[in-house]
Amino acid sequence: MKRRDFFRNTAFTALGASVLSPFQSIAGNRPMKNPSVRKAKNIIFMVSDGMSTGTLNMANLLLQRKEGRQSNWLSLYERNEAVRALMDTASASSLVTDSAAASSSWGGGVRVPNGSLNVNADGSFNKPILQKFKAAGKSVGCVTSVPITHATPAGFCVNSNKRSDQPGIALQYLDLRFDVMMGGGLEFFSADKREDKQDLFAKYRQAGFMVFQNRDEMNTLSDKEDRPILGVFYADGLPYALDRANDPTLASTTPSLAEMTKAAIKKLKNNKNGFVLQIEGGKVDWAAHANDAGALIYDQLAFDEAIGEAMAFALADKETLVVLTTDHGNANPGLFYGEQANRNFDRIQSFKHTNDWILNGTDKSYTPSRLIERIEFAQGYSITIDEAKELLSHYETLDGDGLYNPRKLPFRKLAQIQEKHLSVGWGSMDHSADYVELAMYGPGSEQLKPFVKNIELHNFMLQTTGIFV
Amino acid sequence: MKRRDFFRNTAFTALGASVLSPFQSIAGNRPMKNPSVRKAKNIIFMVSDGMSTGTLNMANLLLQRKEGRQSNWLSLYERNEAVRALMDTASASSLVTDSAAASSSWGGGVRVPNGSLNVNADGSFNKPILQKFKAAGKSVGCVTSVPITHATPAGFCVNSNKRSDQPGIALQYLDLRFDVMMGGGLEFFSADKREDKQDLFAKYRQAGFMVFQNRDEMNTLSDKEDRPILGVFYADGLPYALDRANDPTLASTTPSLAEMTKAAIKKLKNNKNGFVLQIEGGKVDWAAHANDAGALIYDQLAFDEAIGEAMAFALADKETLVVLTTDHGNANPGLFYGEQANRNFDRIQSFKHTNDWILNGTDKSYTPSRLIERIEFAQGYSITIDEAKELLSHYETLDGDGLYNPRKLPFRKLAQIQEKHLSVGWGSMDHSADYVELAMYGPGSEQLKPFVKNIELHNFMLQTTGIFV
Repeated sequence: MKRRDFFRNTAFTALGASVLSPFQSIAGNRPMKNPSVRKAKNIIFMVSDGMSTGTLNMANLLLQRKEGRQSNWLSLYERNEAVRALMDTASASSLVTDSAAASSSWGGGVRVPNGSLNVNADGSFNKPILQKFKAAGKSVGCVTSVPITHATPAGFCVNSNKRSDQPGIALQYLDLRFDVMMGGGLEFFSADKREDKQDLFAKYRQAGFMVFQNRDEMNTLSDKEDRPILGVFYADGLPYALDRANDPTLASTTPSLAEMTKAAIKKLKNNKNGFVLQIEGGKVDWAAHANDAGALIYDQLAFDEAIGEAMAFALADKETLVVLTTDHGNANPGLFYGEQANRNFDRIQSFKHTNDWILNGTDKSYTPSRLIERIEFAQGYSITIDEAKELLSHYETLDGDGLYNPRKLPFRKLAQIQEKHLSVGWGSMDHSADYVELAMYGPGSEQLKPFVKNIELHNFMLQTTGIFV
Repeated sequence: MKRRDFFRNTAFTALGASVLSPFQSIAGNRPMKNPSVRKAKNIIFMVSDGMSTGTLNMANLLLQRKEGRQSNWLSLYERNEAVRALMDTASASSLVTDSAAASSSWGGGVRVPNGSLNVNADGSFNKPILQKFKAAGKSVGCVTSVPITHATPAGFCVNSNKRSDQPGIALQYLDLRFDVMMGGGLEFFSADKREDKQDLFAKYRQAGFMVFQNRDEMNTLSDKEDRPILGVFYADGLPYALDRANDPTLASTTPSLAEMTKAAIKKLKNNKNGFVLQIEGGKVDWAAHANDAGALIYDQLAFDEAIGEAMAFALADKETLVVLTTDHGNANPGLFYGEQANRNFDRIQSFKHTNDWILNGTDKSYTPSRLIERIEFAQGYSITIDEAKELLSHYETLDGDGLYNPRKLPFRKLAQIQEKHLSVGWGSMDHSADYVELAMYGPGSEQLKPFVKNIELHNFMLQTTGIFV
């Protein structure tokens, strides 16, 4: 698709379009209440990282069967209030993107090689979109369930040759002074974990930031807070939503993605020039890398709760474009056929804990029967003695796969054992090239065409807010 | 979703809507050239059976990289000429449908248990949609790459407790006298294969049908042919498109799906009252059940060629609604991440034959080196001696999985070996509960909402052609 076709039939004078008839101005694929092109004051850009179509689908099915209701995401479709597209997610180096190149495609408007943040193959930089919005007078921020220095928020904020330079990205954020940055990643801010021994929390405070390190502190946020906010609530990623829900300490000390979203909007909405906020359900991707069905589905539902917060604001505000999407598929999970597919899938409704909780809480000292009990407690079904022995044998060899699996635990093996109990299968432990779901609600959404490249969203966001490129 | 919401803002008087303003009448999610509700004279309903999102995506990626062009399906999106929806595919008995219940949901408007064709759990029947269209004066027909008596065409045509009663369905078709029925399934029509020894070809001819048993016969079809047509071109399913393309005999004796589509339209378009035609890419599903990447992608492309024929007619005709969809996901394949993902995926461009050709053409007499050569010839890469030995060992045990695998050959094992060569992975060898792609082009498409249940398409088709329910 040529870029000039993307904003087909628009009235944007910057694109040289002449005045159009009311019918011609309806360029997107949604009924419009008002046929004139609408400008967005705010954008809430929501990314369920690594969400294959089965992830969206299984979360909705679970919610329907457990609570008799649709997800917020699919409710938007049922009410015919969203515009949908398929998005091509390739990077400059591969048909299968990583999260750094994917976020850079939106953040910088250019496909870059996997692993880099808004840095082209020739070393040149593309200016990150939140810097552009900040320069245009808007408040800006990011909220995520993984380290706030991780690829998806970073792709909207910084230039960096290596996504892995999270200590450096934490320093870049200090200079950028964005209005809200909240998530995990304590190790990139605390003096005892950083190689350079700098205490970034102290530096942020000295520079005038309000710093939150737990949920209670975040809850003190006032409507009128002027200071920029840094919230870092946990080492590495925040706990999976399922584990958090069943651990009172985690539930009281760490915020949910929806709670962070609500707090971020509270802070950002005070700017009369508007705001742009990225919200990432980052651990959906981590759960897919681990083939961890409970983690995946409940973190997708936690993301959906955050959609609820964003939509509540957008519905009242009427000047906010809400974007719902993912950066790439991951593992292409599905609920697969079998006589017991419904019954098996329904087991997930009563899960207490994730595979992550099961495996990271187990060690070499475990007997097979103790592991069997742990899985029964966490997920309500029994594996066999032989299966338990096989899982435990991996605690000797430490040969497990999966990207966020530093201890090399047997996530793949556990997922394979679970298939007969849950009817959930996985195609891989890594990203896919699938075209992904993209949906928009609110002013500007009517401009979306049914098939887009990830890079096209960059100018789309700038143009729909009236910041011409 | 309540059914009355499905046709939101329509001007269908049968639904009691009052006259609406031009803007209100734009109820779907596509720009309309003409804001009034349009009636379709013809419907071409196209089903890529068992098409997960990765199937659509990989076929498009292969075509882009091999020929520098988009598929016909995605070109429609790029040109912003289609309306898209997500479709919930569940059956009465399971979140994961089979093809019989799926086609019945469209064909009868009611969810029935897996395995049955328009028969409810209580034994009552739902009238199949092509019978309704026939009674309303339209010409009707089905074209498929699997037996014409298979579940997807049968779900539009007949009531049957068991989809497996294909000999009985072949007899039902004789009584129904539909205008065009073409596909595979010789064994359900020929006297020497049927248990009851009836020669159905003779009976169809006696009843006034024109009968085609090869491509040359089909090519004799005249514009003015009055007789109903039965075309049965092969035992079981037709050859995979990739194998057919590389076998001159198959290419000359069996028609492609696009050729059958063109012939069917040639016959059906003569009715001034219009026609309804179902076209099924049925072997896309069989390829997914076999985790056969070459079969899957090239049969999806053969389906896409058939889309080209349907669209060529619809573009000229302007009164035809074209529906593009699938009945359910299958195996959720994907092109997955790896350093060599692009290079590996590009190997598929030069494939000569499918895994089906490799494995069904191999027997116990094969040496490992001969199997290695066979795979090199068919697909251009080398497996190891150990891998060849392991594959051949399954010719002793005959323990292979996959639905259309009567010889129990090692399809799953071969797909696992291929992963490192192709970067294509699979989540299962069976159907998934994924919500699936649904797109429409032409009059009536503007009525489609972004999220629908499969059953809703039944009344949608009747209403959009003005046959009120």
